[in-house]
Amino acid sequence: MGALDRLAELGLQLPPAPQPVASYVTAVRTGDLVFTSGQLPLVDGALGVTGLVGERDGDVSPATAKELARTAALNGLAVIDAALGGSGGLDAVVRVVKVTGFVASAPGFTGQPGVVNGTSDLLVDVFGEAGRHARSAVGVAELPLGSPVEVELVVEVA
Amino acid sequence: MGALDRLAELGLQLPPAPQPVASYVTAVRTGDLVFTSGQLPLVDGALGVTGLVGERDGDVSPATAKELARTAALNGLAVIDAALGGSGGLDAVVRVVKVTGFVASAPGFTGQPGVVNGTSDLLVDVFGEAGRHARSAVGVAELPLGSPVEVELVVEVA
Amino acid sequence: MGALDRLAELGLQLPPAPQPVASYVTAVRTGDLVFTSGQLPLVDGALGVTGLVGERDGDVSPATAKELARTAALNGLAVIDAALGGSGGLDAVVRVVKVTGFVASAPGFTGQPGVVNGTSDLLVDVFGEAGRHARSAVGVAELPLGSPVEVELVVEVA
Repeated sequence: MGALDRLAELGLQLPPAPQPVASYVTAVRTGDLVFTSGQLPLVDGALGVTGLVGERDGDVSPATAKELARTAALNGLAVIDAALGGSGGLDAVVRVVKVTGFVASAPGFTGQPGVVNGTSDLLVDVFGEAGRHARSAVGVAELPLGSPVEVELVVEVA
Repeated sequence: MGALDRLAELGLQLPPAPQPVASYVTAVRTGDLVFTSGQLPLVDGALGVTGLVGERDGDVSPATAKELARTAALNGLAVIDAALGGSGGLDAVVRVVKVTGFVASAPGFTGQPGVVNGTSDLLVDVFGEAGRHARSAVGVAELPLGSPVEVELVVEVA
Repeated sequence: MGALDRLAELGLQLPPAPQPVASYVTAVRTGDLVFTSGQLPLVDGALGVTGLVGERDGDVSPATAKELARTAALNGLAVIDAALGGSGGLDAVVRVVKVTGFVASAPGFTGQPGVVNGTSDLLVDVFGEAGRHARSAVGVAELPLGSPVEVELVVEVA
């Protein structure tokens, strides 16, 4: 089953690929790899939630942040699809190689892996074993527009 | 027009490639890709400005930080040129693939994209459409030597 | 001399490859590159030290953090070995391409390069000139499980 069919089975659809807001592009193919730009959990071009993630002192709960990491990943799939020609280009992905997940973290919050699981779980849901990737999860000070999470993907295409 | 000619037309010249200060190198080629080390806005080996970037509470204004991101990018081009043999090796670059821009951010500063545009705009000025890249912009706690920005590049060579 | 022989000569042995704790894997090969997940300085599955790194205000001294960066790098070699089939797969590495070192940094700590030298020095000890890599060192707010350091590697294999 292709990635798009699997998305449909999961009740998901690719959002419109977010547009870059400066002199960059959302994804670049080089050889058999596609590198995405850092993806925010934008929905219709806006962030529904902003602030730092934390258990107690954060503006955003880890559970909410995990959902946002899933949304950001879906945007990542959309920009990969667009970079591969759109309309199912995503089906050319043969392996997710690397995920880097940045979590805007309140002091003392060390649960970044649980947050970035929102991204990782979606990728495995969509691609199965081929969705398992190398991953770094990092707690940063601030993210663009006040986003609680930002994720970037590297995938291999056929 | 090659990258070096375009730099000259912009009134810019490649600085001497900054030297690594430890057991690493400034850029590595693997296959058709060159990965640079994180570049600081060093000029003649020194940082002219240090501190955190912010609108009000920062030590460094976003506008100044954007200039620094441009300087760091120029250093990045210098180390790529050197890694490709120097003396115009940079002209072998066929595409800028990825930029990661780290901005040392004061609390509440979320304008990292505007800062990293200093890098992105330079790359498009020099390489034209081939300079458009995937990009992540992230706000971090601290950077080496107190630098306000650090940028790393991945480029594709012929 | 192969990497494993060199490790033995240094009095080191590969630890058991740390296991991922979520839906990702510890390293992925794509073409001639292997990307590792972010490695923590786990020993027998646990962190011996946690907290932020700093000269005075940190929980962890830069010297201790440098040791931790070495331990994390050793874990990185273990996961590369495992990804390449184990039992000496590491000897297929022909070049270390890129290291990204994240240092959980107390306010005002700007000595990230010295910390990440713990990783860089080990790689040169093990691989010689082929161990010299491009590198970024960044000071972040928080890391998973309270780890003071996290390092990820990209290597080229034959």
